[in-house]
Amino acid sequence: MTNNDPDFLRELGQQLRVDSIRSSDAGGSGHATSSMSAADLLAVLIAKHLRYDFDSPDDPHNDHLIFSKGHASPLIYSVFKAVGAIDDDELLTYRQQGSRLEGHPTPADLPWVDVATGSLGQGLPIGVGVALAGKRLDQLPFRVWVVCGDSEMAEGSMSEAFEHAAFAGLDNLTAIIDVNRLGQRGETMHGWDLASFSDRARAFGWHAIEVDGHDVEAIDAAFAEATETTGKPTVIVAQTKKGKGVKAVEDQDDKHGKPIEDVEEALEELGGVRDLTVEVSKPDTDGEPHRFETSGEPEWPRWELTDEEEVATRKAYGMALAALGGERSDVVALDGEVSNSTHAEEFTKAHPDRFFEMYIAECQLIGAAVGMQVRGWTPFASSFAAFLSRAYDFVRMAAVSQAKIALCGSHAGVSIGEDGPSQMALEDLAAFRAITSSTVLYPCDPNQTAALVREMADHDGISFLRTSRGKSPVIYEADEEFEIGGSKVVRSSDDDQVTLVGAGVTLFEALKAADALAEDGVNARVIDLYSIKPVDEETLREAASETGAIVTVEDHRPEGGLGDAVLGALADVENVRVRKLAVESLPGAGSPEQLLHESGIDAEAIAGAARELAGQPAPA
Amino acid sequence: MTNNDPDFLRELGQQLRVDSIRSSDAGGSGHATSSMSAADLLAVLIAKHLRYDFDSPDDPHNDHLIFSKGHASPLIYSVFKAVGAIDDDELLTYRQQGSRLEGHPTPADLPWVDVATGSLGQGLPIGVGVALAGKRLDQLPFRVWVVCGDSEMAEGSMSEAFEHAAFAGLDNLTAIIDVNRLGQRGETMHGWDLASFSDRARAFGWHAIEVDGHDVEAIDAAFAEATETTGKPTVIVAQTKKGKGVKAVEDQDDKHGKPIEDVEEALEELGGVRDLTVEVSKPDTDGEPHRFETSGEPEWPRWELTDEEEVATRKAYGMALAALGGERSDVVALDGEVSNSTHAEEFTKAHPDRFFEMYIAECQLIGAAVGMQVRGWTPFASSFAAFLSRAYDFVRMAAVSQAKIALCGSHAGVSIGEDGPSQMALEDLAAFRAITSSTVLYPCDPNQTAALVREMADHDGISFLRTSRGKSPVIYEADEEFEIGGSKVVRSSDDDQVTLVGAGVTLFEALKAADALAEDGVNARVIDLYSIKPVDEETLREAASETGAIVTVEDHRPEGGLGDAVLGALADVENVRVRKLAVESLPGAGSPEQLLHESGIDAEAIAGAARELAGQPAPA
Repeated sequence: MTNNDPDFLRELGQQLRVDSIRSSDAGGSGHATSSMSAADLLAVLIAKHLRYDFDSPDDPHNDHLIFSKGHASPLIYSVFKAVGAIDDDELLTYRQQGSRLEGHPTPADLPWVDVATGSLGQGLPIGVGVALAGKRLDQLPFRVWVVCGDSEMAEGSMSEAFEHAAFAGLDNLTAIIDVNRLGQRGETMHGWDLASFSDRARAFGWHAIEVDGHDVEAIDAAFAEATETTGKPTVIVAQTKKGKGVKAVEDQDDKHGKPIEDVEEALEELGGVRDLTVEVSKPDTDGEPHRFETSGEPEWPRWELTDEEEVATRKAYGMALAALGGERSDVVALDGEVSNSTHAEEFTKAHPDRFFEMYIAECQLIGAAVGMQVRGWTPFASSFAAFLSRAYDFVRMAAVSQAKIALCGSHAGVSIGEDGPSQMALEDLAAFRAITSSTVLYPCDPNQTAALVREMADHDGISFLRTSRGKSPVIYEADEEFEIGGSKVVRSSDDDQVTLVGAGVTLFEALKAADALAEDGVNARVIDLYSIKPVDEETLREAASETGAIVTVEDHRPEGGLGDAVLGALADVENVRVRKLAVESLPGAGSPEQLLHESGIDAEAIAGAARELAGQPAPA
Repeated sequence: MTNNDPDFLRELGQQLRVDSIRSSDAGGSGHATSSMSAADLLAVLIAKHLRYDFDSPDDPHNDHLIFSKGHASPLIYSVFKAVGAIDDDELLTYRQQGSRLEGHPTPADLPWVDVATGSLGQGLPIGVGVALAGKRLDQLPFRVWVVCGDSEMAEGSMSEAFEHAAFAGLDNLTAIIDVNRLGQRGETMHGWDLASFSDRARAFGWHAIEVDGHDVEAIDAAFAEATETTGKPTVIVAQTKKGKGVKAVEDQDDKHGKPIEDVEEALEELGGVRDLTVEVSKPDTDGEPHRFETSGEPEWPRWELTDEEEVATRKAYGMALAALGGERSDVVALDGEVSNSTHAEEFTKAHPDRFFEMYIAECQLIGAAVGMQVRGWTPFASSFAAFLSRAYDFVRMAAVSQAKIALCGSHAGVSIGEDGPSQMALEDLAAFRAITSSTVLYPCDPNQTAALVREMADHDGISFLRTSRGKSPVIYEADEEFEIGGSKVVRSSDDDQVTLVGAGVTLFEALKAADALAEDGVNARVIDLYSIKPVDEETLREAASETGAIVTVEDHRPEGGLGDAVLGALADVENVRVRKLAVESLPGAGSPEQLLHESGIDAEAIAGAARELAGQPAPA
């Protein structure tokens, strides 16, 4: 039998079902029935349409296969067995301690998995990112195949992906919707009404094909049509049965995520264990990934201490990013339709070919960044910090994918002023600190911002830079070095009685407070904690031991931000008292200065707290 | 002139423009141009179609008017002036300290504003919630009018709302899309291609009407058609010009969010200041809001210390919620298609009329809950805690709305086992703690869970309950009281050398560790910190002073969770050393027990940390 033989395809589909059942059984849990519905789709795909060298997963010419329905992991691993990437013994380690075949796929040790999925609605937006990279960055003809569940079509992030893929004309992208009718707890909104999916897709501008998802010849024709369709992405809406082929579970409610009870009987019904191996077509390896020209000696932005004009850190971000793009051809930028506020527009002007306007769709913004780093690009994605919260689940999953992405959130805190709390990020430090292996940076001056942008480009994992709306004075030399995990002691004496720790806008308030305290004869050390995570424990512990009293101040909620980072660094230190100042209540209308004051995080509040801690009375 | 006179409507539209410009000018900032595009739409709506008693904003018969494009706040406040709700002097306090007319609307002091908007893509999903309440809860014929921007149509949450509104047949809902073509930094994806909006809407199942958004008669007809349309929601796709009526800004790029430069000239162009007052039609006040029958003496779930069978806290959540629904007719439940996992299904079985299946669309899930509390209902919304992160921006904005919603997130932490990190909430405590005025609860036993569910129903603001996948023993009496902000000392002696603080699954590990320590002669106090926020400072400070050493342990990341809550409570306490145990690295495959061990948060790790802190050698 050959890959072209429909009987072989049907047999292969049965093998994928059998192996999905066997692996789930070995693991004691897993989504066998959700795997079985898509088995024929995958059989045809790997035997006839996928172009992938499984011995060389990093080959840039390879297609990309993403399971947006990541719970169908038994099917993914059964595919890996069928193509010879893993053996049967390994297949049966599914979900067991030490196995790389986790309950939902992660790229940790599986080179054929691009990204972690399992939080529904993410695979397609990420696939859009990979496809954008194929079209506009790598400029290679690889295809992106995304296997989607019907339940996850309810996620708005899927609509964002449908919208953007059509807008960008991604004819290298095929979405395959496994319409098995049944979600976790019952029927989906649309059941087997295939038109409900294809009508929406067509309205978004896709080519849509409805197909019987268990008819291998029809599937084959649909994939061929998808490959031939130009100018727009294609969705294959496939009617399938959950648990297909095993009477005890086929199209039955309440069989989601449960291993098959009578495995022996099920395997018999499916014709028993097979050991077919598929020769997957290798990609055409003509052509190398496109590399953008760099500009040779780009001018790195510099600001002088003597500059009278103040500069917003968001502006410095944009300028540094533009300069970085001049140095490095791997750097790309994305923004959520606010590039004139985040100043990502500086990059756009300098490198329009490497800028991606993602419109007001933050999940797709982050998903695209994750997709681009799959192909080795170094994406910087920006929006208002408050609005990155829309994509928090995408950031969380990007960490599970061990993705390398740099994020910039502007307009942090009450110091944005009149626009009000809907636009103020006050939870972002907490949210990003809690992400696995994240880096959280909060610069106060333009030179510091630029230096940190450069650091981020070489830093693994999720890095987040918080920038401010208002302008800041230049307080650091242009050549000053700022490492991730560091801090700067910007004011100190041999006899400091209290330490003030701030970052961003509050650093300037802390400096003003130190001036006021000095007038009362209180020496205050001031630390610029620009690296909120990792945090400079050594400098903080030294300050604790030398001053015994620390005031932290942040334009952020009291929980999980700068203050908690300081407390964490000093958890086991005795003889230090810490006072956290932060935004406790909901801000109302007012200017930046008014809101800093009302929130109790301005110089006056800092000096007051420091006096109390240092045991000094307030001045008369 | 009467409300029926087209000239009056046109004049009213001009007044709304004039007042939008005047208020933005007085405030020094604001989105005048985005207000001007929608002015005619609003003029016709308030003069002819809205049914609202502005003297009685709490009247349950009132229509609801929600500005999803919250940045058009000058228009909202100009409407409030036109209907006589505020006077001209107040209009000119816009965006100034102490004014209730904030940069983006919040309901803080404005009784005619249902919810805060300003983070785009939220008004329509919330409107769906209000409309669902109208249809299925209140069972009153009020209409919900939602004014949307064209840029925000890119947000996936808008698609979730389109999908759900059609599914639920919400013919009491009208969306008005102000297609002014221009976003913040340039043209939207679709410009004035009205069909791109109406085609998508029709594919989702809506009735769509395209209209010239500056033709008052056409607008009037469209609203009438919307009101008459039954069985499906209606969207009015209105072609408009940003900055309409003022040449210097009309349909110009780069005029977003900027006050008009030459105000005098602009007002002249618009025909000067007017002082029209609109008589808005009052609603028909026939009929009272529906009240569901309660079951008299519902059986509150109880578990006995002697019970041999263990019970998962998620199961206790569902049972308590069902019982609560029997006691209180205001309690409603919503779930994101995982009610058989969160156990919200217990409520569904008992009170099917008050349960809302929101499918896998977490933004719409939270949006609907916010919408229902607008109408005074007490919503409990549940999903996996990990997936609530998809709606983090909705939760953040719900806090700005000062909404009262109860959230339950199940399947927290590595202790879910084999399903892997995509399904594990490990950031949720940090994320929810950072929300303004939030409450964060994490019970360990079924009686405690049930008691906290009852507390949540009476608690203002955003409350979050974290439940566990695995079963727990019963350790509290069924009548034990658990207040929000409390804790339980579950083990102590007169001579405790160390304190162990846990919650949820780690409380049991802490108890096991205390047993092991006792064998080595180390007395450990154990605190159940079930209220992570607010936190029981008094008990923690007492433990700090009496034992001098504290080990915190949580099935969560080290940042922003239980450990940081403890450190925050002890910030200014000297002579205490704290050691935080938490999930530091990315979990792989394994069982709950294996992952607790690998993550260093099991009894063995706790005992080890406690011995170190208490200065005891490890046992030989």
